[in-house]
Amino acid sequence: MDGATVMRWAESLGTVSEEPGLLVRPFASEAMRRADELVGGWMSDAGMHARRDGIGNLIGRYEGRGNRTLVLGSHLDTVRDAGRYDGPLGVLVALACVKRLHDRDERLPFAIELVGFADEEGLRFGTTYLGSSVFAGRFDPRLLTLEDTDGISLAEAVRSLGGDPGALADAGRERSDLIGYCEVHIEQGPVLERLGLPVGVVSAIAGQSRIAVEVLGQAGHAGTVPMDGRRDALCAAAQLVLAVEAATRDADGMVGTVGRLAPHPGASNVIPGSVELTVDLRHQDDRVRDRVGRLLRERAVRIGAERGVEVRWHLRQDAPAAPTDPQLTALLARAVEGAGVRVEHLPSGAGHDAAEMAAIAPMAMLFVRCRGGISHNPAESVEADDVGVAIEVLERFLRQLAASEGSTRVTEELQP
Amino acid sequence: MDGATVMRWAESLGTVSEEPGLLVRPFASEAMRRADELVGGWMSDAGMHARRDGIGNLIGRYEGRGNRTLVLGSHLDTVRDAGRYDGPLGVLVALACVKRLHDRDERLPFAIELVGFADEEGLRFGTTYLGSSVFAGRFDPRLLTLEDTDGISLAEAVRSLGGDPGALADAGRERSDLIGYCEVHIEQGPVLERLGLPVGVVSAIAGQSRIAVEVLGQAGHAGTVPMDGRRDALCAAAQLVLAVEAATRDADGMVGTVGRLAPHPGASNVIPGSVELTVDLRHQDDRVRDRVGRLLRERAVRIGAERGVEVRWHLRQDAPAAPTDPQLTALLARAVEGAGVRVEHLPSGAGHDAAEMAAIAPMAMLFVRCRGGISHNPAESVEADDVGVAIEVLERFLRQLAASEGSTRVTEELQP
Repeated sequence: MDGATVMRWAESLGTVSEEPGLLVRPFASEAMRRADELVGGWMSDAGMHARRDGIGNLIGRYEGRGNRTLVLGSHLDTVRDAGRYDGPLGVLVALACVKRLHDRDERLPFAIELVGFADEEGLRFGTTYLGSSVFAGRFDPRLLTLEDTDGISLAEAVRSLGGDPGALADAGRERSDLIGYCEVHIEQGPVLERLGLPVGVVSAIAGQSRIAVEVLGQAGHAGTVPMDGRRDALCAAAQLVLAVEAATRDADGMVGTVGRLAPHPGASNVIPGSVELTVDLRHQDDRVRDRVGRLLRERAVRIGAERGVEVRWHLRQDAPAAPTDPQLTALLARAVEGAGVRVEHLPSGAGHDAAEMAAIAPMAMLFVRCRGGISHNPAESVEADDVGVAIEVLERFLRQLAASEGSTRVTEELQP
Repeated sequence: MDGATVMRWAESLGTVSEEPGLLVRPFASEAMRRADELVGGWMSDAGMHARRDGIGNLIGRYEGRGNRTLVLGSHLDTVRDAGRYDGPLGVLVALACVKRLHDRDERLPFAIELVGFADEEGLRFGTTYLGSSVFAGRFDPRLLTLEDTDGISLAEAVRSLGGDPGALADAGRERSDLIGYCEVHIEQGPVLERLGLPVGVVSAIAGQSRIAVEVLGQAGHAGTVPMDGRRDALCAAAQLVLAVEAATRDADGMVGTVGRLAPHPGASNVIPGSVELTVDLRHQDDRVRDRVGRLLRERAVRIGAERGVEVRWHLRQDAPAAPTDPQLTALLARAVEGAGVRVEHLPSGAGHDAAEMAAIAPMAMLFVRCRGGISHNPAESVEADDVGVAIEVLERFLRQLAASEGSTRVTEELQP
């Protein structure tokens, strides 16, 4: 059970797809059924009892000596034309640790539940954390009427899995026995690679604002309207793009992106009459994100006023940051140190199932270096050696947790 | 024969379309055939002999007392979902003048040829001035292989009109008898409306640079790539958009527009890896346009260097300005004055058939005020009273030209 084993598992799993020639595993698809079958088989080989819950999360349980439970996991669904590691790596690293325990016939003082979440990417219904939201008891039943591109509703898709759509809102995992949740995931960014580190400890999952901006000016002929008579929506939008960059650069650890921008009518000889654009703001401290968001909104209105164009600012999503648990994270950092790796804390700019899980259990996350920070792409790549380090860190984490379980003494030592 | 008559003609002609509910008359279409039939009938009523040339230009000739010829005209084709006046107005105002002559049984010392050009907008084949380029003997036979969206070549379309594609390059109008060319056209801009004038005299048709710019940065996850590690192609493009605006504002009479701009991949949570955009620069003085174009190209390269992105600058079109003829334009200005209208000279930022015609004959143009500067839109609108003024001005122009024709004395008077 080393990095190479996990790489082979990831390779097998990477062939399980809805379409030949590229990797795509949407929620409640035939490919997900086969993926669950494959991973469920490996879970059984590792001494776990595997089942699917009402939303299709694959849950393998490895019993312990006590009644409490540690949850490990990540997601098994993918984006379209995905890489092999975003999601599956976390499930497979945890699986390798459990297999090691099982191979030694070893029981910890707590049970391990390993969850392969059914839908994190939201490819089919445009949802966020569908699988983990049900597990965490945070499912919003209004989502059941969402339809995929074939007109199939989420409720129908759940029924196709044998689930009861009406029961999902109350299908949250009992919390009382939970020790915590720990997720391993590829970084999906370039920081660890730049630092030359195989793994890093997540400090928090950044909160995110998603803003849709409309800029309404006046279209006109590119040849006949003098410059001083123009209300060019694209010039106003360009100022806003640069304002997003400047404001986020000024706030340490902040990222801000205009990813979509579409001028209308979009002809080379017509002054843009309107522009639609998106602003994506993220920071691990919600107060910083709120401050930058307010500042940018004011700046957008001022740009509009100066140019005689209207700027409409629609906050589409305002997801708070998900803090990691200080004690569990300190244990994880000690495990990293124990594996001979310098401990580096970094925020997660991307969202993860751990953000939902933080609502019902202390949460910690470990990032694994990936090549070039590339993700959501077949070129996604991790090194077997780094995966080996991740397995070692997670195993050390389990042992330290085992040592501390039932012992307030150890817990107190970890307090600052 | 007043403004109201021309408005009724324009209304009838505005119903002749390839599609019900909107006005669209592409080159060599059934709608163009019907439009030519309608206008050809009105030409006959005005005592003209009407025919079509090899590219489908409709040419009505009203004989004069002498051998020389003045050409009047504009185009009869339209963009998709067009207004009624862009093109047809110039043909119909000239037609009204000839009809007045015919109704009084009056002959001028020169013949008038009224041309309804077959294709100015280039809707079907993406060409520029197709009809007038043949008339002016400037047709490029390499265009014959262009195909429309149905895969029909320009050569086939010409044959469907009964024309001989191979003969087009040599089908230019004999020049020796030409006195000049005068075109009436809606302004397609807001200048005359702001000045409160029904008509204005065109000083020159602006030269135009069309530039395609590619900005090549690096895509990445909007949440995971720190600001200082980004090579965001959209931020570089935004700087360029504002540089185009600033550089053209600094040059009097210059206009510059970024009309198309597309970031890739164009997802809200992905840093744009590349951007394609267009730059459109126009000025009546080619030296000014060249200077601003060079300055912007240097600026674009500098922006790229500062940001570590590559900027590729492709000059797609470099059309020189078309000067109006000083003597013919002075006659036209005197006609405007004679009609009791303050003379205002303004450049044409849009291209017109007159730009081609300037290659074979002295050229002058008269603009007619249009509401809000709106064109290429069903909302295109002109006032009957303004059209009446245009008819009066053109008639005065014809009489002044008749007085000067054969009399070097008058021509000399007009010299500075």
